[in-house]
Amino acid sequence: MSTHDHTAIQDFYPDAFAVCYGCGRLNAHGLHVRTVLQGEDGLADFTPRPEHTGVSGFVYGGLLASLIDCHAIGTAAAIAERTAGRAVGDAPAPRFVTAALHVDYLRPTPHGPPLSLRAHVVEATERKAVVEVEVEAAGQITVTGRVVAVRIPSSMGA
Amino acid sequence: MSTHDHTAIQDFYPDAFAVCYGCGRLNAHGLHVRTVLQGEDGLADFTPRPEHTGVSGFVYGGLLASLIDCHAIGTAAAIAERTAGRAVGDAPAPRFVTAALHVDYLRPTPHGPPLSLRAHVVEATERKAVVEVEVEAAGQITVTGRVVAVRIPSSMGA
Repeated sequence: MSTHDHTAIQDFYPDAFAVCYGCGRLNAHGLHVRTVLQGEDGLADFTPRPEHTGVSGFVYGGLLASLIDCHAIGTAAAIAERTAGRAVGDAPAPRFVTAALHVDYLRPTPHGPPLSLRAHVVEATERKAVVEVEVEAAGQITVTGRVVAVRIPSSMGA
Repeated sequence: MSTHDHTAIQDFYPDAFAVCYGCGRLNAHGLHVRTVLQGEDGLADFTPRPEHTGVSGFVYGGLLASLIDCHAIGTAAAIAERTAGRAVGDAPAPRFVTAALHVDYLRPTPHGPPLSLRAHVVEATERKAVVEVEVEAAGQITVTGRVVAVRIPSSMGA
């Protein structure tokens, strides 16, 4: 499915937490990652911009890390809402931040086709979630990631 | 030292490998990370753009991952040149790509001050280097990273 026709968790981040370069709806220059729940998984689509190259013809690895990061954080928030008995959009979304990010670049990711990201929460407590992410391009999984997400600390304005 | 007044390894990537969004001198929209050797360490400076926010007031984690990635790759290349008995600029720079990237976000990175990155190769063979990176902002190390860099494979145009 295209995630652009669906409700994304990022639509419900409070304004102060919606300026993220990766996923903030209020960041005019940002990537606008949108995370939509399908069953237990978070899905996101992203088509890299022309300038998002690494080596010529392939997607920049830092962009892939950024997509994995924001999509994992969004999936952690969406699953936390479900666990609390709410649907995405019932209330302001909880905001997680990244404690650790790991990315394995399995093969080069071709620049051109849209990317599909699928994320799954593999461990969750009230304060923390571990999220695994796969990135697919042209029918192949090219990159995988693992993110440790924690509820935003009071030092960051929560 | 400011790395902008010094020779950077990225100035010597062959044109085809100099389009990277993170560090390519030929990418008009990119971040232009520049890696300068000082002793055995690679140094880089970067001042985040206004839009590079995560949560308001703090630097976007995906940008930090991108800086770590490109600076580690640059440091791997610069140290490989030294190991081969050449100085940076004596020959076209060897090009590494990222096999794996790990980032630990130790504390929030304030948005505003310039960031200083210091990278060190902790393991190296002819085909591979493991590089550790620290990111400092306003006198504190806020983020650390570890990158597995490999010599660019023939499938990517090497």
